[in-house]
Amino acid sequence: MKIAILGGTGSIGEGFALRWASKHDIIICSRDVDRAIETADKYSGTVLSKGLVCCGISGCTNETGIEDVDVVVLSVPYKGMVPLLQKLKPFFNNQIVISLVVPMQKNDKFEYTPPEQGSAALEIKEILPETVKVISAYHNISARKLADLESNLDYDVVICGDDEDAKKTVMELTHEINNLRPLDGGGLESSYMIESLTPFLINLAIKNGLRDLGVKFL
Amino acid sequence: MKIAILGGTGSIGEGFALRWASKHDIIICSRDVDRAIETADKYSGTVLSKGLVCCGISGCTNETGIEDVDVVVLSVPYKGMVPLLQKLKPFFNNQIVISLVVPMQKNDKFEYTPPEQGSAALEIKEILPETVKVISAYHNISARKLADLESNLDYDVVICGDDEDAKKTVMELTHEINNLRPLDGGGLESSYMIESLTPFLINLAIKNGLRDLGVKFL
Repeated sequence: MKIAILGGTGSIGEGFALRWASKHDIIICSRDVDRAIETADKYSGTVLSKGLVCCGISGCTNETGIEDVDVVVLSVPYKGMVPLLQKLKPFFNNQIVISLVVPMQKNDKFEYTPPEQGSAALEIKEILPETVKVISAYHNISARKLADLESNLDYDVVICGDDEDAKKTVMELTHEINNLRPLDGGGLESSYMIESLTPFLINLAIKNGLRDLGVKFL
Repeated sequence: MKIAILGGTGSIGEGFALRWASKHDIIICSRDVDRAIETADKYSGTVLSKGLVCCGISGCTNETGIEDVDVVVLSVPYKGMVPLLQKLKPFFNNQIVISLVVPMQKNDKFEYTPPEQGSAALEIKEILPETVKVISAYHNISARKLADLESNLDYDVVICGDDEDAKKTVMELTHEINNLRPLDGGGLESSYMIESLTPFLINLAIKNGLRDLGVKFL
């Protein structure tokens, strides 16, 4: 598959690029094309240095990068997400869009601040063309551990979405990453629950002196 | 310590009685005193049959049971909780009240339906005397596994509360149960997060063919 990563130069984007590069074509998207290309080269180097196959990691502008792919990973901060998607809307057609976006604010602790639609995922669905299949997943995976190919990712990934085929594709992509276990979280209307886990986990980590918390349901 | 269990004849009450009976005096509370005494005798028999110490498990009415204890475990359904607590209010003084209560409804899936205070725990705090220390915990522990003394409870228990000493006591009580790990979830205003995990876990279990799901943060 062709997988574009919006926010691909960020820390969580790096992890997905490295983990999926052995099986898929990865496109690192950025407003700054030079930075995208440079980052893509760096990621390719990392994959090859581990003796792994690298199908190809390339750098692109956001517009060109997402136009002709199967999957778009949306790993951008919530702040700025709405104008970005409105601008990129003409370049979306029928991709699967995986949202990792969590609207949250830090006051005395981190708080989930969903938009009026109820969650970032539902807002994304409202903005993008109806033919796009929005999936909500990976909010609670540590960027540091994902990018560390030696790290054992024994976590659960709850996946929400309204298109069963798209959800199945994201479940398969999840299975490809080490020990991650995909779980069906139901429709996109349940995304608020997995999005709101992120500030909860950050607060829990800070309060209890822990780090990079993920979740396992057992 | 003296620990009263409101809803002590129910399945989750059984687990706490069995797990804490070796170190604490347990009082099983019920509207029906005969049923309370009969249940207490049954639990004592279970503890002794495992060759464990049993400090004493007795049965009582709700009113008499909670009046003179250190800790009250509130393991009753949300439906009926408010009138029950209003009726019992004169018997509360400065106990630690551990709320396991989750307001939820089943529509096409389970949904968290908090009262206007924001969570069951905050509503309980509003109803009971100010001197009572309300702690929110144990919402996501499987009743079946808790009551099975052979079961390895390798789960995390997030504990919320505004009184640090009371929270510390509940953390110690948690440590006494097998492999349970207590985590500080902050003030009682964060209780909605751990309460809302319960319907989420039930939905997840149903959707994915799993059973008795607990949570581990790692």
